Amino acid sequence: MTAESATAEPARTGRRPGQSGTREAILNAARVRFGEVGFDKASIRSIAAEAGVDSALVHHYFGTKQELFVAVVQLPMDPRIVLQAIAAAPLDNLGEHLLRTVVGAWDSPAGIGILAAFRSVIGGGDTTLFRTFMLEVVLKDVRERVDNPKGSGQKRIALVASQMIGLLTVRKVIEIEPIASMSVDELVELVAPTVQRYLTGDLP
Amino acid sequence: MTAESATAEPARTGRRPGQSGTREAILNAARVRFGEVGFDKASIRSIAAEAGVDSALVHHYFGTKQELFVAVVQLPMDPRIVLQAIAAAPLDNLGEHLLRTVVGAWDSPAGIGILAAFRSVIGGGDTTLFRTFMLEVVLKDVRERVDNPKGSGQKRIALVASQMIGLLTVRKVIEIEPIASMSVDELVELVAPTVQRYLTGDLP
Repeated sequence: MTAESATAEPARTGRRPGQSGTREAILNAARVRFGEVGFDKASIRSIAAEAGVDSALVHHYFGTKQELFVAVVQLPMDPRIVLQAIAAAPLDNLGEHLLRTVVGAWDSPAGIGILAAFRSVIGGGDTTLFRTFMLEVVLKDVRERVDNPKGSGQKRIALVASQMIGLLTVRKVIEIEPIASMSVDELVELVAPTVQRYLTGDLP
Repeated sequence: MTAESATAEPARTGRRPGQSGTREAILNAARVRFGEVGFDKASIRSIAAEAGVDSALVHHYFGTKQELFVAVVQLPMDPRIVLQAIAAAPLDNLGEHLLRTVVGAWDSPAGIGILAAFRSVIGGGDTTLFRTFMLEVVLKDVRERVDNPKGSGQKRIALVASQMIGLLTVRKVIEIEPIASMSVDELVELVAPTVQRYLTGDLP
């Protein structure tokens, strides 16, 4: 691909542009900044400065900061597809929707990549980046929706993360039966009450 | 250590004996058999045959089959200490006891070793052995106690495993707050209802 065709592309697709050296420099700078100061405090401006490029070029190659983060963690699928499905769910039914959408993603063809990324993180990878990804990309909107009483949102989503991550591990990594072979419907029926309690139940 | 002093030791401590070649041969044979046919079907006799030694020597070095298994998975602590505490708990309170005992083990000095073993398994280690360990050593007695209605025990402990493993990951590996820094008491209060429902609640 030439630099010209890269420029002709819409910026928000985040596809590989021609100037792969620049793209790599931005990715490396983003990895450093996100790792050092976290997602919120890492500005596009500071990442651009670290990479020695203009902020506009970062936006051109990667779109938003969230999209840049997704590129840094090299996800096998765009989490926004999952997130849109979750955002549309009513609050009193959010546990079931969250579970059905996320388990559906694990069971999809992209699931192999998700699993590989997860195993690599737990096996000794960058847990800071993974934590940031979970909190600032996957669970950020949910946290704001379930922050009731005020200040409980972070505790709620940490609990949800504990159940979801454990389910991923048991279903896909350690493969404990019957969870490993169970249909999504059955799994959702069993675990949704837990996730819903963490999201909206009375917590001590 | 000489062979003589090893013989003088009580067999059940499982300490390193003088004839470390034999000990290693037994461990290797056990690793192969447990991995191939699982904990239940791997007899001491078949492990001894595979190692080219007498069964009595296996018992002398390692004690029971469960103790041999613990030696194979190289646990940093003896899981029977944890299991005894859990066995003493009444059924209607088992979730809280299980959680308190297991989180206590993670938070103890031995927790670093538990965590390292866990991360190594998830990162690409022997998941078959880990699954066997979870099902045949850690959760076997619990499964029998919660098998009500008959046949539901395996589903119940798989669900418990999903919550416990996820909690370990969030508290100790990814370190998502407030779970990472929460007191054991607070964590138990939040999560015990989940574990108790999985153990004894009405499941679909």
